[in-house]
Amino acid sequence: MTSQTTPATTATIVRLLREDLRGRTAYGAPQLDVPVALNTNENSYAVPAPVVEEIVAAVRAAAGGLNRYPDREFTALRGDLAAYLSRSGTPVTPEQVWAGNGSNEVLLHLLQAFGGPGRTALGFTPAYSMHPIITATTGTSWVDGLRGGEAGSGGAGSGAAFDLTAESAARQAAEHDPHVVFLCSPNNPTGTALGLDVVEAVHEAAPRAVVVVDEAYEEFARPGTPSALTLLEGRPRLVVTRTMSKAFAFAGGRLGYLAADPALVDALRLVRMPYHLSTPTQVIARAALAHVDTMLGTVDVIKEQRDRIVTELGRLGLDPVPSDANFVLFGGLRDAAVTWRTLLDAGVLVRDVGIPHYLRVTAGTPEETTAFLEAVAALPPDHHLRPEPEGQP
Amino acid sequence: MTSQTTPATTATIVRLLREDLRGRTAYGAPQLDVPVALNTNENSYAVPAPVVEEIVAAVRAAAGGLNRYPDREFTALRGDLAAYLSRSGTPVTPEQVWAGNGSNEVLLHLLQAFGGPGRTALGFTPAYSMHPIITATTGTSWVDGLRGGEAGSGGAGSGAAFDLTAESAARQAAEHDPHVVFLCSPNNPTGTALGLDVVEAVHEAAPRAVVVVDEAYEEFARPGTPSALTLLEGRPRLVVTRTMSKAFAFAGGRLGYLAADPALVDALRLVRMPYHLSTPTQVIARAALAHVDTMLGTVDVIKEQRDRIVTELGRLGLDPVPSDANFVLFGGLRDAAVTWRTLLDAGVLVRDVGIPHYLRVTAGTPEETTAFLEAVAALPPDHHLRPEPEGQP
Repeated sequence: MTSQTTPATTATIVRLLREDLRGRTAYGAPQLDVPVALNTNENSYAVPAPVVEEIVAAVRAAAGGLNRYPDREFTALRGDLAAYLSRSGTPVTPEQVWAGNGSNEVLLHLLQAFGGPGRTALGFTPAYSMHPIITATTGTSWVDGLRGGEAGSGGAGSGAAFDLTAESAARQAAEHDPHVVFLCSPNNPTGTALGLDVVEAVHEAAPRAVVVVDEAYEEFARPGTPSALTLLEGRPRLVVTRTMSKAFAFAGGRLGYLAADPALVDALRLVRMPYHLSTPTQVIARAALAHVDTMLGTVDVIKEQRDRIVTELGRLGLDPVPSDANFVLFGGLRDAAVTWRTLLDAGVLVRDVGIPHYLRVTAGTPEETTAFLEAVAALPPDHHLRPEPEGQP
Repeated sequence: MTSQTTPATTATIVRLLREDLRGRTAYGAPQLDVPVALNTNENSYAVPAPVVEEIVAAVRAAAGGLNRYPDREFTALRGDLAAYLSRSGTPVTPEQVWAGNGSNEVLLHLLQAFGGPGRTALGFTPAYSMHPIITATTGTSWVDGLRGGEAGSGGAGSGAAFDLTAESAARQAAEHDPHVVFLCSPNNPTGTALGLDVVEAVHEAAPRAVVVVDEAYEEFARPGTPSALTLLEGRPRLVVTRTMSKAFAFAGGRLGYLAADPALVDALRLVRMPYHLSTPTQVIARAALAHVDTMLGTVDVIKEQRDRIVTELGRLGLDPVPSDANFVLFGGLRDAAVTWRTLLDAGVLVRDVGIPHYLRVTAGTPEETTAFLEAVAALPPDHHLRPEPEGQP
């Protein structure tokens, strides 16, 4: 039966697979059914009922016409996304906007167009784990840039080990002369935003690169954190990516997008699959965008919980990294994998991002935050890298 | 302003673009607002009202939870697709099924996994125009196989010039030893289905190839036309792709899928973007699949119109190719582009697929078919390659 994988057929398929894919495992944060899921930086708040009604109405109006292909250029949606971005004070036109089924697909389009075999992409890890994966998918070579390299010590506290200065980033960009550079601001999983001086310096130091600033978490940034949107003018190689998955509470709707020069956007038509955004995707995203303030209504309470997590984890003797996002990376753990498992057994799912002594937790509702903090407080002392917490009486 | 493309920024972007993409133009059937659109092989019938209600109910149930990521493995949808395919009499399990945002994305995943730079894909043109485009997108080399090569004459009538025999296909497959082979049955744009002997012969002749049988139009095939699903057992390199865009009247829903060995399906996880199928895509497709008979209720009337087109175009002195799909390719035109324009001016949009003397028309409603046939009958005699139609009194 072909309905069962056998060792023989698996061997056949591995033999046929692209050489560089062999032995790889697929991306996958566990999708577990737990009481408190704080592992994928989702927004814990459901889509509000009035917006649900608008979504339903939009689908009702469109469903009869699903026999027809969608608007390949998703013109109306691009207009709405441009209007949303323009609220920041930087005018963005529909011709500057591109979208995909999640920002992953937008990043894929960028790498398909501007990367490829014989080309390199530079990122500064730890950053969004999909950047190197999408890079590899397109046959582009990945260069692992360094953060906080000079400082050196992994246990420096307060995230200094994860800082990225303009000088360091520009030096690495000039050294590798990549075709694509990823900057991530606020950075996932470390949480802090980059200064625009870093973006400007990297853009100047990598003259043949498309510079991608991944701002998936931008709406959660602390006051005074500027967006790279303000740098687009006069920089046709600069791209700012965004998503509706986080602040918009719309991860299931799969809508990522970018803003860039219209000529760059136009080039992405060469690599996208025709009709890549379904009619429901377009009309449902538009219904959500028509209620921006409602959809973003949970941002403030999430930011409060984030700041609460930073404060409380510090009190508990751990090393939380300051955050501009809806999550907190925290260090000071003896064995992150053991603590991850212990928290899961207590019903709290967080993310082991592969950084020794660190875990990442999403800021959810106040109740979820309480459950998480209580589970951390209940950890046996030997979970701590420093069993006698400093700064406590 | 970056909101306007300037010659300078366009030049910058072209310089940054992947070398092999420069100078290419994006895929694009015109999306024109015309009275009778018969150019993209859509199903002309709207989704029936009872199914619209089911779709709306499914979205209502899911919309509140759009803050969460979708099921990355689209488990329930795969089960429904497997059940649908199993109706043919060939049992298909959920583990044998994969899906994407349209069959284009499914084909992209196949080429990302099994193609790539230094590898080749063979197709027998004219066939689905996206096959070579998706191949090029992944950096795979395209080899243009020949149909009806020996017969040779482009004006042979009845489509003999487009036939593909097992012997010819296998010889070409052996000669090129490709990594991927595309067979298209029923073939777009020529309309006829392949015998399974062709699939078997190509599979045997290309021992390192993933053999993809694109059955996008399978539900329209004439009685007695077997599906390559019946060949899957014992052939882990064989893939059958399908779509809900045609017979299912669901082009706007963007749901393509495939059946293959579970080991091959599993390999596609290495290249897909995580969460590539949105929650609405999954629940809306499931609502449609729950009403298979209703959704496929228009297939018979469309087949009648297809056969009517073949009969009537023959009477009008043109050369229609027999069809197993929801469209008809017809030859006998002096200048296909001129006739395309004349029909468009009469409010009928058909497809110029780039084959000299031929156009392709979708079989729509009886009224649309009548409008098309009347527009053809009204063509001035000099549109005909043979101004004095044979076989007429």
